[in-house]
Amino acid sequence: MRMYDIIKKKRDGEKLTEEEIRWFVKGYTRGDIPDYQAAALCMAIFYKGMDRNETAALTLAVRDSGDILDLGIEGVRVDKHSTGGVGDKTSLVVAPVAACCGIKVAKISGRGLGHTGGTVDKLEAIEGYRTDLTTEEFAEIVRKVGVSIIGQSADFAPADKKLYALRDVTATVDSRPLIVSSIMGKKLAANDDCIVLDVKVGSGSFMKNIKDAEALARSMVSVGKSAGKRVLALLTDMDKPLGLAVGNSLEVVEAIETLKGGGPEDFRTLCIELAASMVYLARQEEGGKNAPDMDACRAMVREVIASRKALDKLAEMVQAQGGDPRWIYEPERFPKAKYSLEVRAQEKGYIYRVDTEKYGEVSLILGAGRSTKEDRIDNTAGYILAKKTGEMALKGDLIATLYTTEKPEMLQQAADLMISATGFWKEAPEPVPLVLGTVE
Amino acid sequence: MRMYDIIKKKRDGEKLTEEEIRWFVKGYTRGDIPDYQAAALCMAIFYKGMDRNETAALTLAVRDSGDILDLGIEGVRVDKHSTGGVGDKTSLVVAPVAACCGIKVAKISGRGLGHTGGTVDKLEAIEGYRTDLTTEEFAEIVRKVGVSIIGQSADFAPADKKLYALRDVTATVDSRPLIVSSIMGKKLAANDDCIVLDVKVGSGSFMKNIKDAEALARSMVSVGKSAGKRVLALLTDMDKPLGLAVGNSLEVVEAIETLKGGGPEDFRTLCIELAASMVYLARQEEGGKNAPDMDACRAMVREVIASRKALDKLAEMVQAQGGDPRWIYEPERFPKAKYSLEVRAQEKGYIYRVDTEKYGEVSLILGAGRSTKEDRIDNTAGYILAKKTGEMALKGDLIATLYTTEKPEMLQQAADLMISATGFWKEAPEPVPLVLGTVE
Repeated sequence: MRMYDIIKKKRDGEKLTEEEIRWFVKGYTRGDIPDYQAAALCMAIFYKGMDRNETAALTLAVRDSGDILDLGIEGVRVDKHSTGGVGDKTSLVVAPVAACCGIKVAKISGRGLGHTGGTVDKLEAIEGYRTDLTTEEFAEIVRKVGVSIIGQSADFAPADKKLYALRDVTATVDSRPLIVSSIMGKKLAANDDCIVLDVKVGSGSFMKNIKDAEALARSMVSVGKSAGKRVLALLTDMDKPLGLAVGNSLEVVEAIETLKGGGPEDFRTLCIELAASMVYLARQEEGGKNAPDMDACRAMVREVIASRKALDKLAEMVQAQGGDPRWIYEPERFPKAKYSLEVRAQEKGYIYRVDTEKYGEVSLILGAGRSTKEDRIDNTAGYILAKKTGEMALKGDLIATLYTTEKPEMLQQAADLMISATGFWKEAPEPVPLVLGTVE
Repeated sequence: MRMYDIIKKKRDGEKLTEEEIRWFVKGYTRGDIPDYQAAALCMAIFYKGMDRNETAALTLAVRDSGDILDLGIEGVRVDKHSTGGVGDKTSLVVAPVAACCGIKVAKISGRGLGHTGGTVDKLEAIEGYRTDLTTEEFAEIVRKVGVSIIGQSADFAPADKKLYALRDVTATVDSRPLIVSSIMGKKLAANDDCIVLDVKVGSGSFMKNIKDAEALARSMVSVGKSAGKRVLALLTDMDKPLGLAVGNSLEVVEAIETLKGGGPEDFRTLCIELAASMVYLARQEEGGKNAPDMDACRAMVREVIASRKALDKLAEMVQAQGGDPRWIYEPERFPKAKYSLEVRAQEKGYIYRVDTEKYGEVSLILGAGRSTKEDRIDNTAGYILAKKTGEMALKGDLIATLYTTEKPEMLQQAADLMISATGFWKEAPEPVPLVLGTVE
């Protein structure tokens, strides 16, 4: 087999065989196939796409390029994965909630590169919390506590790591089969029984419109099923930030409030939908015939929140991973930002739409995220929104409070960026439902 | 400027600016831009193309990536360039012919990678002939003799060398703007006043149909003119080998026969057309108003052949470059192949069509060409055709005689390949003119 022929075949719009795809992924991961040939192939895939079989073959080849997690524990394992958005701290809520419903949640999360840190970075805002457990420690905590969230330790899907880095610099990130194989290749290597996907749609996410998002969701669900997993995807709105808090400590605190039964309505609703979907899939996996419907699952989820069982579960997990559980019960222990600035409305009107990607940039320039892998995150940085899309503001009303410790010199620029990213209008926009669709 | 943005722009079908193109070519040549980003851009160009301005900008950037030849001699310099085909030894004839018509021919030729060697390899079949002259020696011979043919010594268009090697392994050779910038970038660095392009069309050439060939010719002529050169392109038939001889020594001998007024008709005709076109352009460059028309130029060319002046000119050039001029007058001095095999018709019929690319492979496997840069060429290897497309053969009639010294074990395979590449039919094919069109 020659890489040249594979590139040419895809260039001319032909379908690649499973054998050709596996040969490419293996050879590229080992370093036998050079970056420039892989880059040419990625660009050809960008234009010519891949059908369902090719996408599945690529995903499984990515999965098989490294270790596949085997925790050796009893019970149904369910994962939740979000395609990413501004203010998305759902994992911190749904993981302990799902665990309280009897699901094993062995969550391997990434570090963030972008507007805020990833779930792992957020958890590290809690003093002492260790995200670098061995697979044995990880399995032990999942077995005992029911839930553990760590950073990537084992060598999962190294093909994706290499391919993603290449796509990132060759303008080939934005290709559905490549996105699917990247996300699902890693997820399948984590080897959960069921996967709930949260596919974001809107100005703050990768997929700007519902059509693209739905096609992506369908492809991911199809590939997951062809690998023998139960998969369900929710299409959810990311045309505004999720919740009110953006920034690492600020988001952990909002997640804690939500586990106490409070928190912003949109965020609480999404957490309930996602956790209920996890329970729904798990029960189907276990039982089949007598599995509860989604409404029954929502009720279960609401109960473990109302009873504070899920809050206790988060504290239990934090303690098991070396963190101080008192931070969960007394969130005032999180260090506060040294500097803050209030952003106020400069005109009267409804917030008609926001450029959520720019809202993400606001937190990034305040120090909440990383531009490069080496950047250090300021856990106190970010903002709390006072008004969101659809709400009315009078001139001078508070829109948001910005926080930073490390970058006070950026406060004004961040405020200006937020104002420029916020569109006012004399009428209120049509309300958009949070969950735009479900793909099973 | 960021390479990522340039790739994305072209990926999305936008036009690149001259500044962006120059920045890319400079950065890639210097090694600041990695191969994988250049590969992604080439694939995007493959799909999205380049307009006339972009193609011109890319060509001039390639030209300017290295030295530009300055010979410091008087007189109009004219070059002839062929896009390549099987049996194409026209340079050996047209260069001395043009020199006899008062043109300065300072020809820098490549080595071949393919079915036979390039012009430089063919000339090296003459004992003693040096192709590695310094620029000063080269200029001196052009000044005194009027013609010199050497291999590439100076560092012309290094961007093309690097880009071509990359395109060759990433399935991006086959893109018009990239082909144009590669050919014309080098030609413009050689800095002749006029350029005659021989764009081949058919099964033995890069361009398989007249439409593609014409578009390529138009683009090359346009780019050359925008760089201030006089350019003319002939579209010529390469649906069959040119002449009867294929292989290095065999082709030199056929060129000598043609300079003696003999040689195969198709080859002789093409040499006259190309040389006349060179004279035509040169006279226009010199005189303008009173310049002769093409018929007058053809007559001039026929005269220097008939008078043997052009043959003497070739001998003079060979001598000036260290070769033995007696080989030109006594071609029986060329060493003969040790082994030969006759290929005979296995059925009665007209030769209806031949797969000329496969005919090229026949000479390659006999040892006449190189598969890799390191391969050594067998100067005696190749074949002499006895029948060509359009001719009638009875069963058992001689089609060709194959020759080799180094690879006798390949003779039978080569014969089988030739037979399989030759299509017989009960009727004669429609005759195809040698010159299919002219682009000025």
